[in-house]
Amino acid sequence: MYRTNNCGELNINFVNKEVKLSGWVQKIRNLGGMTFIDLRDKYGITQLVFDIETNENLCEKARKLGREYVISVEGKVAERSNKNKKIFTGEIEIIVNKLIILNASETPPFTIEDKTDGGDELRMKYRYLDLRRNVNQKNLILRHKMAFEVRKYLNNLNFVDIETPVLIKSTPEGARDFVVPSRMNKGEFYALPQSPQIFKQLLMIAGYDRYYQIVKCFRDEDLRADRQLEFTQIDCEMSFVEQEDVLEAFEGMAKHLFKKIKNFDYKKKFLQLTYEDAINFYGTDKPDLRFGMKIKNLTEIAKNKNFEVFNNSEFIAGISVEKSANYSRKNLDKLTKFVRKPQIGAKGLVYVKYNEDGSFKSSVDKFYDKKDLSNWAENMNAKKGDLLLILFGEKNHTLNALSELRLEMGERMGLRDNNKFEPLWVVDFPLLEWKEEDKRYNAMHHPFTSPKKEDIHLLDTDASKVRANAYDLVINGVEIGGGSIRIFDKNLQAKMFKLLGFTKEKAENQFGFLMNAFKYGAPPHGGCAFGFDRWVALFADVKSIKDVIAFPKNNSGKDLMINTPSEIEDEQLKELFLQKI
Amino acid sequence: MYRTNNCGELNINFVNKEVKLSGWVQKIRNLGGMTFIDLRDKYGITQLVFDIETNENLCEKARKLGREYVISVEGKVAERSNKNKKIFTGEIEIIVNKLIILNASETPPFTIEDKTDGGDELRMKYRYLDLRRNVNQKNLILRHKMAFEVRKYLNNLNFVDIETPVLIKSTPEGARDFVVPSRMNKGEFYALPQSPQIFKQLLMIAGYDRYYQIVKCFRDEDLRADRQLEFTQIDCEMSFVEQEDVLEAFEGMAKHLFKKIKNFDYKKKFLQLTYEDAINFYGTDKPDLRFGMKIKNLTEIAKNKNFEVFNNSEFIAGISVEKSANYSRKNLDKLTKFVRKPQIGAKGLVYVKYNEDGSFKSSVDKFYDKKDLSNWAENMNAKKGDLLLILFGEKNHTLNALSELRLEMGERMGLRDNNKFEPLWVVDFPLLEWKEEDKRYNAMHHPFTSPKKEDIHLLDTDASKVRANAYDLVINGVEIGGGSIRIFDKNLQAKMFKLLGFTKEKAENQFGFLMNAFKYGAPPHGGCAFGFDRWVALFADVKSIKDVIAFPKNNSGKDLMINTPSEIEDEQLKELFLQKI
Repeated sequence: MYRTNNCGELNINFVNKEVKLSGWVQKIRNLGGMTFIDLRDKYGITQLVFDIETNENLCEKARKLGREYVISVEGKVAERSNKNKKIFTGEIEIIVNKLIILNASETPPFTIEDKTDGGDELRMKYRYLDLRRNVNQKNLILRHKMAFEVRKYLNNLNFVDIETPVLIKSTPEGARDFVVPSRMNKGEFYALPQSPQIFKQLLMIAGYDRYYQIVKCFRDEDLRADRQLEFTQIDCEMSFVEQEDVLEAFEGMAKHLFKKIKNFDYKKKFLQLTYEDAINFYGTDKPDLRFGMKIKNLTEIAKNKNFEVFNNSEFIAGISVEKSANYSRKNLDKLTKFVRKPQIGAKGLVYVKYNEDGSFKSSVDKFYDKKDLSNWAENMNAKKGDLLLILFGEKNHTLNALSELRLEMGERMGLRDNNKFEPLWVVDFPLLEWKEEDKRYNAMHHPFTSPKKEDIHLLDTDASKVRANAYDLVINGVEIGGGSIRIFDKNLQAKMFKLLGFTKEKAENQFGFLMNAFKYGAPPHGGCAFGFDRWVALFADVKSIKDVIAFPKNNSGKDLMINTPSEIEDEQLKELFLQKI
Repeated sequence: MYRTNNCGELNINFVNKEVKLSGWVQKIRNLGGMTFIDLRDKYGITQLVFDIETNENLCEKARKLGREYVISVEGKVAERSNKNKKIFTGEIEIIVNKLIILNASETPPFTIEDKTDGGDELRMKYRYLDLRRNVNQKNLILRHKMAFEVRKYLNNLNFVDIETPVLIKSTPEGARDFVVPSRMNKGEFYALPQSPQIFKQLLMIAGYDRYYQIVKCFRDEDLRADRQLEFTQIDCEMSFVEQEDVLEAFEGMAKHLFKKIKNFDYKKKFLQLTYEDAINFYGTDKPDLRFGMKIKNLTEIAKNKNFEVFNNSEFIAGISVEKSANYSRKNLDKLTKFVRKPQIGAKGLVYVKYNEDGSFKSSVDKFYDKKDLSNWAENMNAKKGDLLLILFGEKNHTLNALSELRLEMGERMGLRDNNKFEPLWVVDFPLLEWKEEDKRYNAMHHPFTSPKKEDIHLLDTDASKVRANAYDLVINGVEIGGGSIRIFDKNLQAKMFKLLGFTKEKAENQFGFLMNAFKYGAPPHGGCAFGFDRWVALFADVKSIKDVIAFPKNNSGKDLMINTPSEIEDEQLKELFLQKI
């Protein structure tokens, strides 16, 4: 037996108990004749004491230990003279009478501290040491807890956890598939699932009523901060539901997680914002509602006043920033630089200071008088002391830039409080988007999403106007997940494939089994999928999902620790009937 | 809204309630002026009534429905005159006043019944219909419940659910890997994990103390009844543990599942049987302990008595079958045929009837007198009325045949009761087995398994005698899982790799990161992995794990429903820098 107790559970109630502990040496301090060691395990830190007076050999042995040595000790719990009230075990220490070194440790390549001296690449190479750091342990344990709370919530609602296969069929739609050559079937390949979409729909047709799975999905895409080649989805589907039923079920799940994980009581019904309103009010389909600063359209009232820049703009709009009329020249210059960054790409920034004394000062004083600016301010619901920030240009582009500017101002004003959560559903997404380069429509969500009943007649005449029964859950500006009510009629599904440019043969080859399944009594159904990594990252308050994944890949898709991907033996490739080009 | 209630929850307490139900048409019966429909969903069956007297149109509409149509009805709950006490909803019916056909259905290619007329291949092609059958639903829901109970149990013991990566590194040890070509890294490949072995060990080195995961694993092996290309493992690892700690934790898990899932109270400590004893007593390392019939060695006392067949045999042993001395000639002939089957391969069967009157009748009466046979009977603890069945030949071969014969006799005697569970740990496995064809040792469990301390000295002199800290959990003759205490010392690990024929370079290339990790304070650790599919199959009382997997592959590794594996576009292959041979 290596331990009677762990390093996080002993306190004053255990004084005089004989115990055995095991763990890692976090720190060694020699004070006169005493040596103190902080012994660490997953559960906490306990102080060990060695007294050179009472046991010289033992104390000498302790002094030779290094950081991260793994040791096992026996001794008696004693009350500390110098108490540390900050930790649970801070009132006691162990008077050690036996010390066993279980494993030595070389000096780690970086410090095992919250603020470490190790760079990204080094920490990834020694991820097993990086994972010892408290911040990482906290994040992975948070992830564990969230997964279990999700399961508890969904199990309570009669959802059944069903595993769908990982070796499936490659479909050229959507992102790029990872493929897996088959040894038993020459020249043929499996693909790794981008999502279990089709299988969950088949499970509904099979009568399982409510399905969920916390499941790995795969996309062979170039990586960004919030993308990994493999990621985890909370995947759900329900039968005999309309949109409102799905939203209710998963609104409940979000509230359950808020409460259980963040101890945050969100009682209101989630706001439902149409896609159109989201774009018009916030310039994005994933607005951060922790603060206001809605976008106001000024195109009508600001145009045709001699200011050629505006006159040549399709769209002029702005946000009003509370109590910021005193913004300095320097800060305004910084903002201008910000909106002109290539990623944002505004042509310039127009500001109007609505001063406390009722006067206006703007960067377009040459073209607009007090009446004009007062009119703008009124339109934007600005009050005295507010700062108006206005962008202009092509409409979509400008809305997008305003969205970024709004987030930036929210950040500067300290309005993006990470202890606050503002969820909403974005609804009524367009069903299709026109892909100019391919001269055809693309599914905005996926090809199985149903159009709104009242818009079906537009499919033949003005398909881009058709709204979908599709919805996204957005929290604090992060798209946490989304879903739709699916098509469950074979004729409508066939029509969708046609609109999306599938030939009959290709649709049959790719999705024939689904179309076939629709013939045998498919129920109405719909569902949701949530990006689990993102949700954990949001709750952990970290920027990258890498920080909530035990062994992530880097931006080149490499795991630097195990050094993969790597070459394989020619023999292996030959067995798969393949050769390198 | 498609339903106010599901089809399994209405009973006499709901009489007169206006309800809305949705589901599938299971059965239609026309009785005089009345039409009865059994409406089915996941939760049960509710009877619908249509009366031609009160609503002719509605009743006519109902009569035109077919099996597996999806419908939605509104009506009032009424007490039945003809009650069915066998089902929860059997006392009521719904007097329907509104009927909506949600989806029609063609006649399914096979009947959706427990005993279906559909063959294997047809049911796999239409798996979504096969999954509608009650037996399959029961199995998948059982699987769901077992997974959740496993999680609850392990969470309670501070195990942390941590996801390990699916895209890892190919290692030529063990079974064949599936490989995944990397697009971003030309000429390089990921591999799908055969198990998360290395990652869970790294998590222990990272200080996570107790890890688990219910996780997909992959082996590119030819398929048998209990093998699939992808299968699911309950994967666990613990730090600061000895073998007994691990056994205790997972014995608890098994007992928890017995209790929660099968309502079976197993109070005793599990038997621990050494590998050597398992082989000697039962001829197998996965004995079925629901019945006795231990194998008894007769080599010493049966040899050298003029019977050349025995005299030329390395090993002679048998089992004693209770109260079967009256076995007929015909049955004994059948048994002889059974043991001579090529899969079992015994040369013949010798029987001795120890009759109720104390006399003996055997197939070797020519060579052995009453005293001899009486001696055998005594050695085998046989009583009057028992039947002795004896096999002979090369030792391992004969033990193996006796194991099969023992199972067959257990089956015939009705001793393999599927409502009874007899678990045991098989312990003290050999660390290594000699591979004659490669002239080197193979790891019996895997290269990370630690040898018993007291046997380490044999590694250099008589390695095949070294016993491992390895253990298997066997229930009713099924190997449910196994594990070991791992090596956590880099020198011992290096020695193991050498014994297993790894060159230093190969060991470094494949497992360098693990050896490296051992340098930075690796704790003692060990764990277990359980075949989740097998465990579910055992509890579901089905022979093949296919019956507890939603979408299994067939024995050629094909999914006949989605038709995978399949060809991919040349373009896709080119992007991966590959071409077909």
